[in-house]
Amino acid sequence: MTTHFEVLSASSEALARCGRIHTPHGVIDTPAFCPVGTLGSVKGMAPDDLEGLGVQMMLSNAYHLYLRPGHRFIEKRGGLHNFIGWDHPILTDSGGYQIFSLNKLTKISEEGAAFQSHIDGSRHFISPEKAIEIESSLGADIIMAFDECLPYASDYKRTAASVDRTLRWAKRSKSAHLNKKQSLYGIVQGGFFPDLRKVGVEGLLEIGFDGYAIGGLSVGEPQDEMLEVLEQVVPTLPSDKTVYLMGVGRPEDLVEAVWRGVDLFDCVLPTRHARTGSLFTARGEINIKNSRYKEDDQPLDSDCACYTCRHFSRAYLRHLFIAKEILAIRLNTLHNLYYYLALMSGLRQAIKDLTLSRFRKTFYELRNTASPLS
Amino acid sequence: MTTHFEVLSASSEALARCGRIHTPHGVIDTPAFCPVGTLGSVKGMAPDDLEGLGVQMMLSNAYHLYLRPGHRFIEKRGGLHNFIGWDHPILTDSGGYQIFSLNKLTKISEEGAAFQSHIDGSRHFISPEKAIEIESSLGADIIMAFDECLPYASDYKRTAASVDRTLRWAKRSKSAHLNKKQSLYGIVQGGFFPDLRKVGVEGLLEIGFDGYAIGGLSVGEPQDEMLEVLEQVVPTLPSDKTVYLMGVGRPEDLVEAVWRGVDLFDCVLPTRHARTGSLFTARGEINIKNSRYKEDDQPLDSDCACYTCRHFSRAYLRHLFIAKEILAIRLNTLHNLYYYLALMSGLRQAIKDLTLSRFRKTFYELRNTASPLS
Repeated sequence: MTTHFEVLSASSEALARCGRIHTPHGVIDTPAFCPVGTLGSVKGMAPDDLEGLGVQMMLSNAYHLYLRPGHRFIEKRGGLHNFIGWDHPILTDSGGYQIFSLNKLTKISEEGAAFQSHIDGSRHFISPEKAIEIESSLGADIIMAFDECLPYASDYKRTAASVDRTLRWAKRSKSAHLNKKQSLYGIVQGGFFPDLRKVGVEGLLEIGFDGYAIGGLSVGEPQDEMLEVLEQVVPTLPSDKTVYLMGVGRPEDLVEAVWRGVDLFDCVLPTRHARTGSLFTARGEINIKNSRYKEDDQPLDSDCACYTCRHFSRAYLRHLFIAKEILAIRLNTLHNLYYYLALMSGLRQAIKDLTLSRFRKTFYELRNTASPLS
Repeated sequence: MTTHFEVLSASSEALARCGRIHTPHGVIDTPAFCPVGTLGSVKGMAPDDLEGLGVQMMLSNAYHLYLRPGHRFIEKRGGLHNFIGWDHPILTDSGGYQIFSLNKLTKISEEGAAFQSHIDGSRHFISPEKAIEIESSLGADIIMAFDECLPYASDYKRTAASVDRTLRWAKRSKSAHLNKKQSLYGIVQGGFFPDLRKVGVEGLLEIGFDGYAIGGLSVGEPQDEMLEVLEQVVPTLPSDKTVYLMGVGRPEDLVEAVWRGVDLFDCVLPTRHARTGSLFTARGEINIKNSRYKEDDQPLDSDCACYTCRHFSRAYLRHLFIAKEILAIRLNTLHNLYYYLALMSGLRQAIKDLTLSRFRKTFYELRNTASPLS
């Protein structure tokens, strides 16, 4: 069965909705958050950890896996699912974002992007066709068209040219997409210019994709600018297709984006923050390194039911982190991912119960911050 | 209930025996291997991982925990079991080995050992009384007397003086041992001189301990020298007390030491080797970094039922290790500890079945090496 999206229920107060993405490797309940397994593992987490957390889909990076260990290598190992022991849905991005963010010497032509590996400086060229070939070899359930990503505050002229190129690349990505077991999503670009986002949406709709992603956000802009883009773009996308906000974001970004109709997210934030000791709680983020937690025998978050919070004190978590014990990363990551997944689960339930507005209010009350644009 | 030892069955062919150590936190089936949680965590393993592996007791280091986060600190947190979330037996060593191996500027007097912290250079003094105070604060089920550890190939005169001092320290350790919920084990020293080992044993027996450890081995000597010490010492220890071989060792050391009547082991080898990619299999050790495993789709050890071997290929494990993914350490550690625990379980079963000789023969046949001193 190929991947398709099913809308189950919608909020009465907002564009938020619950749905299900059906894929050859299982179902994803939306709105959903995907942890990032850059190199074929969500850092510190084995597949059974992710299953225990209720993760339904992970994201992996075509760019990173192309460089190391190689997409053909993974194809010979039976594809990414088999290679990494994850028998559930996987989404791969096309590498566009990484090529433009990790490589200073990237040269773009109409044909594609020439770049040097951030690992060994070796030279590579990725075209839309090559990106789809890589993603086909990896064999993810959902794959992304190849796009150009601009830095924040790029000017109008550059952004306009980039949107047009991204659309031509989207068309070539679609033509190269032969493995119909994989869903292909297009990526809306256009920076922070409403008319260019409109061009981005209309161009993609003309080509036609299995789902639509919004790219070029969470690149350093204030949250209100990101939300304005969502408010403009989401209502113009087909309501029977998944809306995926790439690389976002903080808990408050997820709440606001779900409110505005986004179905799918990925972000390195919970896993990366775990490795720096930044831990998410209903009352905001805390850094476990802080000396105020040295003799704190309370759990990290007394309202949290994760393995870490059920078994360990802040004092122990701080000791592990300060002593550079590997277990610190594991326990912190388990907690942060649990927090993100519980947040998504809470959002889904609130949409079904038609109580999203109250959920959102409580979310900000607990954090003692005001809701943005509310 | 205080800790005590119960012999269940003995081998008909050797000094090997099965037993049970009863402690306030549960039972340890012997011969047993204890993973090492230097700083209050077995590196990369959460308590539920260790439980899943069947670990019955872990070892922790009084020296390391005294320096960081401090024994009084841990006592205030309800003791080590509570602090680290491990509700099963713990053994702490007294710090003797670490003080003499990690610190070049250690100064020994009759009173104790003055040393500088290997972390920040701060000055400390640990006497037998202080060591027992630290271990009492930590609250392990089994604690060790304070001893002096000599480097390999120390001469007769130095070793003789050290054995005498270790015995005087053992007596002071015993006098300082007031918390009778904790078992106190004495440590036999004496290097590689049979008459000095005899002095070490007789002196300890005169004082009387809940169990007897053999120290000063696995310090760089060839295996046959270690086994000669065991062959001399073990038969002279009381048969109703645990015999603990400290800091040992490789799989073949465990097999030979069990054969010679040792009940208890601890060693950093399986966990440390995991972090360098050295993995134990029934057919010997392999290093997963090796390029021969690059395209090897077989499990690490097809005879192994651990989580790692049931789910992943050598090619994936090598990829994770080469890419420096944290998951590599976790999967490697799970495997190596599983190997050690399965080896101990196999030895226990063979003793009960009176088939230890055959077990030992098969062990060497699979590795394609000869049994030492057989």
